[in-house]
Amino acid sequence: MPLQDELDRTDPEGAIAAAAKRCSNWGRWGADDVLGTLNFLTEDKRVEGARLVRRGVSFSLSQAFDTDGPQKGWRRRTNPVHTMTDTGTDAERGNQGFPHGIGGADDVIAMPLQCSTQWDGLGHIFDHGNAWNGRRAGDVVTSEGDLVTGIQTAAAHITGRGVLLDVGRAIGTDGELPDGFAITAEHLEATIAAQGGSARVGRGDLLCVRTGRLTRARRDIAEGRGWGDYAGGASPGLSFTTADWLHGSEIAGIATDTWGFEVRPNEFDVAFQPLHQVAIPNIGLFLGEMWDLDALAADCAADGVWDFFLTAAPLPVTGAVGSPVNPIAVK
Amino acid sequence: MPLQDELDRTDPEGAIAAAAKRCSNWGRWGADDVLGTLNFLTEDKRVEGARLVRRGVSFSLSQAFDTDGPQKGWRRRTNPVHTMTDTGTDAERGNQGFPHGIGGADDVIAMPLQCSTQWDGLGHIFDHGNAWNGRRAGDVVTSEGDLVTGIQTAAAHITGRGVLLDVGRAIGTDGELPDGFAITAEHLEATIAAQGGSARVGRGDLLCVRTGRLTRARRDIAEGRGWGDYAGGASPGLSFTTADWLHGSEIAGIATDTWGFEVRPNEFDVAFQPLHQVAIPNIGLFLGEMWDLDALAADCAADGVWDFFLTAAPLPVTGAVGSPVNPIAVK
Amino acid sequence: MPLQDELDRTDPEGAIAAAAKRCSNWGRWGADDVLGTLNFLTEDKRVEGARLVRRGVSFSLSQAFDTDGPQKGWRRRTNPVHTMTDTGTDAERGNQGFPHGIGGADDVIAMPLQCSTQWDGLGHIFDHGNAWNGRRAGDVVTSEGDLVTGIQTAAAHITGRGVLLDVGRAIGTDGELPDGFAITAEHLEATIAAQGGSARVGRGDLLCVRTGRLTRARRDIAEGRGWGDYAGGASPGLSFTTADWLHGSEIAGIATDTWGFEVRPNEFDVAFQPLHQVAIPNIGLFLGEMWDLDALAADCAADGVWDFFLTAAPLPVTGAVGSPVNPIAVK
Amino acid sequence: MPLQDELDRTDPEGAIAAAAKRCSNWGRWGADDVLGTLNFLTEDKRVEGARLVRRGVSFSLSQAFDTDGPQKGWRRRTNPVHTMTDTGTDAERGNQGFPHGIGGADDVIAMPLQCSTQWDGLGHIFDHGNAWNGRRAGDVVTSEGDLVTGIQTAAAHITGRGVLLDVGRAIGTDGELPDGFAITAEHLEATIAAQGGSARVGRGDLLCVRTGRLTRARRDIAEGRGWGDYAGGASPGLSFTTADWLHGSEIAGIATDTWGFEVRPNEFDVAFQPLHQVAIPNIGLFLGEMWDLDALAADCAADGVWDFFLTAAPLPVTGAVGSPVNPIAVK
Repeated sequence: MPLQDELDRTDPEGAIAAAAKRCSNWGRWGADDVLGTLNFLTEDKRVEGARLVRRGVSFSLSQAFDTDGPQKGWRRRTNPVHTMTDTGTDAERGNQGFPHGIGGADDVIAMPLQCSTQWDGLGHIFDHGNAWNGRRAGDVVTSEGDLVTGIQTAAAHITGRGVLLDVGRAIGTDGELPDGFAITAEHLEATIAAQGGSARVGRGDLLCVRTGRLTRARRDIAEGRGWGDYAGGASPGLSFTTADWLHGSEIAGIATDTWGFEVRPNEFDVAFQPLHQVAIPNIGLFLGEMWDLDALAADCAADGVWDFFLTAAPLPVTGAVGSPVNPIAVK
Repeated sequence: MPLQDELDRTDPEGAIAAAAKRCSNWGRWGADDVLGTLNFLTEDKRVEGARLVRRGVSFSLSQAFDTDGPQKGWRRRTNPVHTMTDTGTDAERGNQGFPHGIGGADDVIAMPLQCSTQWDGLGHIFDHGNAWNGRRAGDVVTSEGDLVTGIQTAAAHITGRGVLLDVGRAIGTDGELPDGFAITAEHLEATIAAQGGSARVGRGDLLCVRTGRLTRARRDIAEGRGWGDYAGGASPGLSFTTADWLHGSEIAGIATDTWGFEVRPNEFDVAFQPLHQVAIPNIGLFLGEMWDLDALAADCAADGVWDFFLTAAPLPVTGAVGSPVNPIAVK
Repeated sequence: MPLQDELDRTDPEGAIAAAAKRCSNWGRWGADDVLGTLNFLTEDKRVEGARLVRRGVSFSLSQAFDTDGPQKGWRRRTNPVHTMTDTGTDAERGNQGFPHGIGGADDVIAMPLQCSTQWDGLGHIFDHGNAWNGRRAGDVVTSEGDLVTGIQTAAAHITGRGVLLDVGRAIGTDGELPDGFAITAEHLEATIAAQGGSARVGRGDLLCVRTGRLTRARRDIAEGRGWGDYAGGASPGLSFTTADWLHGSEIAGIATDTWGFEVRPNEFDVAFQPLHQVAIPNIGLFLGEMWDLDALAADCAADGVWDFFLTAAPLPVTGAVGSPVNPIAVK
Repeated sequence: MPLQDELDRTDPEGAIAAAAKRCSNWGRWGADDVLGTLNFLTEDKRVEGARLVRRGVSFSLSQAFDTDGPQKGWRRRTNPVHTMTDTGTDAERGNQGFPHGIGGADDVIAMPLQCSTQWDGLGHIFDHGNAWNGRRAGDVVTSEGDLVTGIQTAAAHITGRGVLLDVGRAIGTDGELPDGFAITAEHLEATIAAQGGSARVGRGDLLCVRTGRLTRARRDIAEGRGWGDYAGGASPGLSFTTADWLHGSEIAGIATDTWGFEVRPNEFDVAFQPLHQVAIPNIGLFLGEMWDLDALAADCAADGVWDFFLTAAPLPVTGAVGSPVNPIAVK
């Protein structure tokens, strides 16, 4: 019986408090810890991951960072604005004033750090004013940025064994889960079973979960309907009830092909991202969002190998609570 | 006899034209090519690179992205400006209006794409109005960005065998080369010889060259003198005369711990980055700048192993002529 | 017979060329001129304008600059992104580290200069590669900005007699013109006649034309339909045929309550802002867009006085081709 | 005897508390007030101001907004970064894809709102966690911006009688006060007396105080020394002891040609902008900074008339705690 059937839809606060209590990793790695579940990603795990490179084929799991992205401005989350400070047109015309025929192009960008493929850092979400490891939110993230768990603290760590669970393919229809579909622990385990041994998930792994939501958005765009509500709207995603599985599996991080990782609408009558509230400040789990898992998934389905060497290095923006990332999977 | 002794300091244009002719890779990978020397980075090379992971230790080769960086505003190259759209202080005070005790922090950034650790893309530099592979600069990079060789085309490719040549340690004093020191092919070869077999450099490798310039900047900062002219001022770097070596070695990319890759002041009386003019539009070579190689160099010196698995995935900003990057080396 | 009936809808290029020839002011104020029609705004005109201040009541003709504006990202025209670098929440909590109980809030903005109430500068539009006064466009506006007619050159000038022509009220239904309505010279003259002597328009005046389009957008927003296509969509506006009237009246500038000044869809089968192509590079006319004329119009209708002292000072951003502006009318 | 001789340099907190108590305007205009001293700027005052326009000559009191400004990055206060999204070079080359020969240039800006000529809004400074009119700072300015006294609330108000007190000319040497010079009420009164009747200052006036600091900075730039510490360094400015004069004069606003309005170093041993702490949250006074008063001052000295019609309209950025401004004086 799926756990979510037992959720009291009227009491998100009670459910969150109970899950937070069961799943808390506060203090597990000492009072000063800033890495959370990245502590599970050991050097041995990296050696194991590197050994998965057999063919040398590489995949970028990043969506494009551009003006035509899915963001709609909610909470000032716009799409990137990329502008040129020098161009080839000016260089060709001789407008730049450089010697010996050299010309150059330069550019700048303005963007939310969570506008496209990203990692949520540990300072991204709070539970009743508490940040990861029990710190007060106002001691951690001020207008100056994340003074404690800024994403730069994770700069060197996120490289190891990746595993893809293609739940869309295993459970869905034509490779996609419908919007509102809550992926439970049972669905995750069924996918692992269906995919076989290379899909085992355990301590220190970097787990990628494909729902097919991005595939659907891409089809919508190709057919002229645009991004629709990919950013913030209805979506398949992790059920609130997976909190214990996420905690118990001791994974180092988890990423999905959706805007918000967890199922939307959320599984309570009045709620906003309740699984985040357990996962980030209480479990200390790194969440990846808006990853593009489609090409990798096709390859894994073709060769039946679902694990790979994954390097998903956040840009070390000092004090950032999240980071754009171009995750690279090598098989 | 170092080749630079033969340079006619009064004729950069002639020297550049000759080197460009000798080293051109135009057409080598077809008229539509957008990858340049990344074509050398084959799947075999990635398998070779992955096998170098023995201990599982990982290094970030990225400097911090923050307001206190070295940029001074030249050609509008400022340091990143990172601001918060939501904070922990507001979350703790209950200012955010979210349900069930959840709070959040979000952030945005505005920055030049070349402000800190970076890749120069193939659209970054032109030679007499020509871009990589012989295209006209104004057909490639307009105000809309790089329409042909935008950095996103390289998104999945830059992962393979990395090699560190610590020229500062091998040739310099106390691990540092002085400003204005031009690293020649002879210096590179001498460093390879000094470092031993793991330092061999060949087709498809990602070469990292440490000069010690960043070490010196860090010391200056620690001692209160600030960044000084790290960005744009005098620096050790590659000699113009290495153009043939860079071409002949068939490396996939090269990165240094300096602002501008090549020696500064440049080796002509009136010049601006002449080696760039050969390397990017003519060789099609990917250049990394402002990489932080110090921790990796210390480790390599300690264990005598100078090669590693390197993943340096550019952020796929559509149409960008360069990209911030957090390169990850795993040994 | 309205002139637009004579327009050959299939030949915008011919119509533009003819109008440009009839209306050109090139050379009128010398080869070095950067002010165009602002030359008509003399000191006498300012004295005349100041004498219109009788009651001392002031009106801001600016829309809000905020994230919820009408822009949709077309050509990277986003709405402003305003973020805080320090907040009252942090100050109150004591997070800022200042002495003696002082606290502060600071903020930054990223925005297109044409995102809300604005002036188009003379470098904003070109006619067959020619900018105002016959300069080549590539000599005027490069990636460095407008090197000749940057908006800062107009910093001190735009203060004088303003006149409001409320065409929406005079000609429209319930104060609004429908989308696609082309305002002709006859409509302008009829409005002047209806409004009486204070509405006379002549040399050096700053003319404001109200269509009611913003009123309609506001109603749409209030009723939950959002901005719709206020930015870039169908709209009433000046007919292409007003080019001669705009030229002959010798006004110093003209502003409307619409996104794009001229009627949309444009009056040719395939066209994009053809009146701009005559008005800016050929007449040298300053165009204001997205002005909020509603409160001023109500006041003018109430007291029957349609002229006022208008100060519409562009922000002197060096090299800008346009500028946000908060125009102030005083009656 | 100058009051500052009586200041206890060791007790800024006591001095601020006492001055705040003496000068508080909290509640003076009701509990909901958001305008502070702008309430003094009545319609009659605007009529009086308009009557000062005799010759019709206009002056921009704004510095340039550009990359070469004085900011150094302190508290992320950078200079503006202005970039083009379309250029004349592209238009001339035919790169833009528009019909009938039209071409365009557009631009964007990223800047702190206090980077150049500006108004401080009432949400800019707090006193022990209190904002203007006794509100709690965290209720007023959150990460969302100033929810109560955002600068847009002042959009229509700041136009009226301006008065220039050229203290640099009246009291200084060669028109300039030295850095560290504290302008007292006596100096202000002496300047008024020296300048004559047109320099009277009273209720509702917009007061401009020239120190000559910008003149000095300009000379430094012209002679190759750059901006130096114009932004944040030593400077002449208002003495802390002028708090009572500022309160008692009932002026609507005050602006200077310096970075920070008050004298620097501040007049206490350990302090940061103590006069701000009295003026903004307690008096409710609008402060202008970095105004360029030189051309206006020269004109006033020449004709002996020191008052004028001043329109200094802030850009109505929703929720901003300050605003760039191009103040226009007309005589």
